[in-house]
Amino acid sequence: MRMSKMFGRTLRDAPADAQTPGHQLMLRAGIARPLAAGLYTWLPLGFRVQKKVEQIIREEQDRIGAQEMEMPVLTPAEFWKETGRWDALEPITFRTKDHNGREYMVSYTHEELITHHGREEILSYRQLPVMVYHFQSKGRDEARPRAGLLRVREFVMKDAYSFDIDEAGLTTSYAAQHGAYVRTFQRMGLDAVSVESDTGAMGGDLAHEFQVLTDVGEDTIAVCETCDYKANMEKARRTMPAAAHADAPAATEIATPGVTSIEALETFLTKPASAFLKTLLLRAGGDVVAVVLPGDRAVNDAKLRKLLDVSQIVFAGDADFGRVGGVAGFIGPVGLKVRVIVDTSVERRGYVAGANKKDTHLENVLPGRDFPDTERADVHDVRTGDVCPIDGGTLALKRGVEVGNIFAFSTYYSEKMGATFLAEDGTRKPFVGGSYGIGVGRAVQTIIETSHDEKGIIWPFSVAPYEVHVVGLPMNDETVRSTADALVATLEDKGVEVLFDDRDESAGVKFADADLIGIPYRVTVSRRSLKEKSVELKGRASSEAELVPLDLAADRIHDIVRRAREAAAR
Amino acid sequence: MRMSKMFGRTLRDAPADAQTPGHQLMLRAGIARPLAAGLYTWLPLGFRVQKKVEQIIREEQDRIGAQEMEMPVLTPAEFWKETGRWDALEPITFRTKDHNGREYMVSYTHEELITHHGREEILSYRQLPVMVYHFQSKGRDEARPRAGLLRVREFVMKDAYSFDIDEAGLTTSYAAQHGAYVRTFQRMGLDAVSVESDTGAMGGDLAHEFQVLTDVGEDTIAVCETCDYKANMEKARRTMPAAAHADAPAATEIATPGVTSIEALETFLTKPASAFLKTLLLRAGGDVVAVVLPGDRAVNDAKLRKLLDVSQIVFAGDADFGRVGGVAGFIGPVGLKVRVIVDTSVERRGYVAGANKKDTHLENVLPGRDFPDTERADVHDVRTGDVCPIDGGTLALKRGVEVGNIFAFSTYYSEKMGATFLAEDGTRKPFVGGSYGIGVGRAVQTIIETSHDEKGIIWPFSVAPYEVHVVGLPMNDETVRSTADALVATLEDKGVEVLFDDRDESAGVKFADADLIGIPYRVTVSRRSLKEKSVELKGRASSEAELVPLDLAADRIHDIVRRAREAAAR
Repeated sequence: MRMSKMFGRTLRDAPADAQTPGHQLMLRAGIARPLAAGLYTWLPLGFRVQKKVEQIIREEQDRIGAQEMEMPVLTPAEFWKETGRWDALEPITFRTKDHNGREYMVSYTHEELITHHGREEILSYRQLPVMVYHFQSKGRDEARPRAGLLRVREFVMKDAYSFDIDEAGLTTSYAAQHGAYVRTFQRMGLDAVSVESDTGAMGGDLAHEFQVLTDVGEDTIAVCETCDYKANMEKARRTMPAAAHADAPAATEIATPGVTSIEALETFLTKPASAFLKTLLLRAGGDVVAVVLPGDRAVNDAKLRKLLDVSQIVFAGDADFGRVGGVAGFIGPVGLKVRVIVDTSVERRGYVAGANKKDTHLENVLPGRDFPDTERADVHDVRTGDVCPIDGGTLALKRGVEVGNIFAFSTYYSEKMGATFLAEDGTRKPFVGGSYGIGVGRAVQTIIETSHDEKGIIWPFSVAPYEVHVVGLPMNDETVRSTADALVATLEDKGVEVLFDDRDESAGVKFADADLIGIPYRVTVSRRSLKEKSVELKGRASSEAELVPLDLAADRIHDIVRRAREAAAR
Repeated sequence: MRMSKMFGRTLRDAPADAQTPGHQLMLRAGIARPLAAGLYTWLPLGFRVQKKVEQIIREEQDRIGAQEMEMPVLTPAEFWKETGRWDALEPITFRTKDHNGREYMVSYTHEELITHHGREEILSYRQLPVMVYHFQSKGRDEARPRAGLLRVREFVMKDAYSFDIDEAGLTTSYAAQHGAYVRTFQRMGLDAVSVESDTGAMGGDLAHEFQVLTDVGEDTIAVCETCDYKANMEKARRTMPAAAHADAPAATEIATPGVTSIEALETFLTKPASAFLKTLLLRAGGDVVAVVLPGDRAVNDAKLRKLLDVSQIVFAGDADFGRVGGVAGFIGPVGLKVRVIVDTSVERRGYVAGANKKDTHLENVLPGRDFPDTERADVHDVRTGDVCPIDGGTLALKRGVEVGNIFAFSTYYSEKMGATFLAEDGTRKPFVGGSYGIGVGRAVQTIIETSHDEKGIIWPFSVAPYEVHVVGLPMNDETVRSTADALVATLEDKGVEVLFDDRDESAGVKFADADLIGIPYRVTVSRRSLKEKSVELKGRASSEAELVPLDLAADRIHDIVRRAREAAAR
């Protein structure tokens, strides 16, 4: 490919709204361009990266016997209505109607659709197990697209689906996908760790995310410093210290005029946050609930949603406070006429809590004595320094990008959709399923975020848009031009993927662009190198260049590329 | 691939609503499945065909130097509004809004989007010419999806775009695409002819369609029986006989009580249809126009729309008749107070025409004398027997499927969108462009429509889902099973694509499925063949089978496949 005619140009400066180093480099190198917030076009250079990432995913899916197919982007409402996700996914999806008024969703994922196909195509246990996958555009009406291709509103996802006879089969399929994911990310140069996660909108109980730990990530992961335990915050647990069972004198009122927050109480009473109880009055679905936590703990929204089996939780309104006998700013669990969920980290010792009376708190509030604490649940965030639930080590919180996720949803969809097969015992049984997703663009952006220097991208060989970047300097020198032309032709004949900078630009511009674009090997054909009857060869990640005799150059470069390919395919 | 685990099953009978032979076979063989009218999922078997068709298209685009990229499915309204197509395409497109109220079109094509990218990426004539293409899902809210994948509401289209400096460059790019299309269709086994066509919603003047002539087609093509002339009805012309210039006596009224159609007049006056003038009162945009044709000619809607530069034409209403002095059923051009367009096939001789008076016609109406006929245009359909405009031969009408189209729209989009580049003379000039489309699914369906027999599909080798279909009979015979297993493993090791029917089904079922699915070579490993230490080899299109010694079978089949691949790649 000749750069002079390549569609897409490099930018000296990144647009001001590019948020992360990788976002800036992605735009500057000409990988993709936005058409609107979160809607991107892959320019030819980035398209090649995307296709290589896709091909790695495909090869690893094929390796575990998954069959490729393709479901459409526009999906009829009726299938989503069978599972209730038509309504549940409304806030995050794009919908359209045809001119007869029939409704469609721009596909969010394809669980409903593949379950439908399964019930049509699979008649008997003899056809099981089976795994299928496709690459298809997904729509997500994200409120805040961010960091280039990291969080967008349209993206191609590889989603795979497994159909099994029973839970044991699902366990096997899930493990096969887990293994495929480990190889997939490793091959594309991503250091992804598998993390326990919540099943969220997918249903079911068992799920893992593959997280790449990087500061630009928007997820928080609890990681044990001494063992393998890693969990998404939605799922992270901790070992509690042995619970205090201290008695306390009778609860008594104390005046706290205008002191309505834990922070203000800490100052006013000169006690640590852990001395207080925090009571949150919330609306979940149609119900009002109170959640009680120690003052130094934050509630985890996802854990609470899972517990209450709702898709959204909001703060209760003034009317709700009145109805349950709570006073905003001074709410506490004592005497509250509502369901009270007590976080597992609340101990049976005296706390200061709101008195449900203006400008007043209660001292020596003892859970279990002064208010019922029988409904206990882990609804708090773990934090750095907490104790690992596996080995007792110390947990640390890290930022991560979720590059893949796998869900063992079991019969969640097949039961709702009446998707059954004839079992060996002659009965009809629901399919036992899982789904497995990887976003292609997010993987590309994460590779850039984790593999670059101040000058530009450093592509892992396996996903580089081209293998060799040939620079001719200057192109108006007839010998340089003809030598570079011949070298490029020879390399291309040998099957090497070459980007040839044949532009009439200065050495400074060309080298800067080569570093920015980040192709693994740069070969410079210049007046100076030709004086030595040589070309200059430099690895993108290395600081040293070497001279290679011109008559050996093509073979030598081809050999390096061949070995790099072999290493990348392992 | 083992058929026992293949996702997707064959059907004994086609659903009742399958309209064409190819539609029935496509469903029965398990190529694709509908999720709603015109929305299809590619099952794994059909997915392989689709990918092979896509790869042929890709190779031919790459061969002419087009660069692959990818634009999104959801396209912001603002770009379509720059050209006016946001409104013009409303009836045929799907739209959606995000939760902030911003509007998007499910992409119809991508002219506006690529023109936008062009104005951002291409600064100077030095970067031209350039061609780009992508494969992307398109939405079309077709009122009547039909014939399986022939006319659907979502489909993947390869759309390519050329950017040139001037018209001469466009001519070169257009010719390159025309050549690529010829090779593309030939390689996938489609006998497509290039046909002059109207530019329709794409704008510009020059366009060709690639039509495959088949009775299931919904387009009508005029084809000269003696030369190469072929044209879509929207564009087809004919050589008129030397125009009659006969004088006529003064026009006089004749009573025609209740006789309101050409057919009724033929009977009532015992004259041929060609003796009458047909006058149509129409609404085009905000205007009312009359169109006059000979009674034996039909108006061509597309020609008229093009002439009047409107996207829709409807019959005028009662109020319009009153306003222009016309009487419905007895309308004629004489005295009509409205713009009158006279079709070129109207001669200057006496006709019978409506008198604009109830139950009355006029005899001896002479165009040019009795009404102005200066605004002349070719707005009639050609018909079988008309004279070819090129060599004077005879035209015939044939049915065709449009499998590709190419448009030289010139500066149609770049001028509307202010998409310019710095020309060599220092001025800014608008890009001169073209667009070039092929629908992947329609190509697949057309291949099925034109390559099958009563038993099933007969895939051209180049796009067959697998190359060899191995049938084991019966699979519960240990020797058959182990021999077939070994043969399949050997063939797959040699890189042959094998579908292996390892199911516990009868010979009848297996052979019927093999014929239905239509893979080029069938290899049967049976008790009977093994008695002869042989396997049976049969081409799908041939009626003869031959025995191949078992020890030579893998090499022999591999050799046949290798030669078929070489032939298909040419």
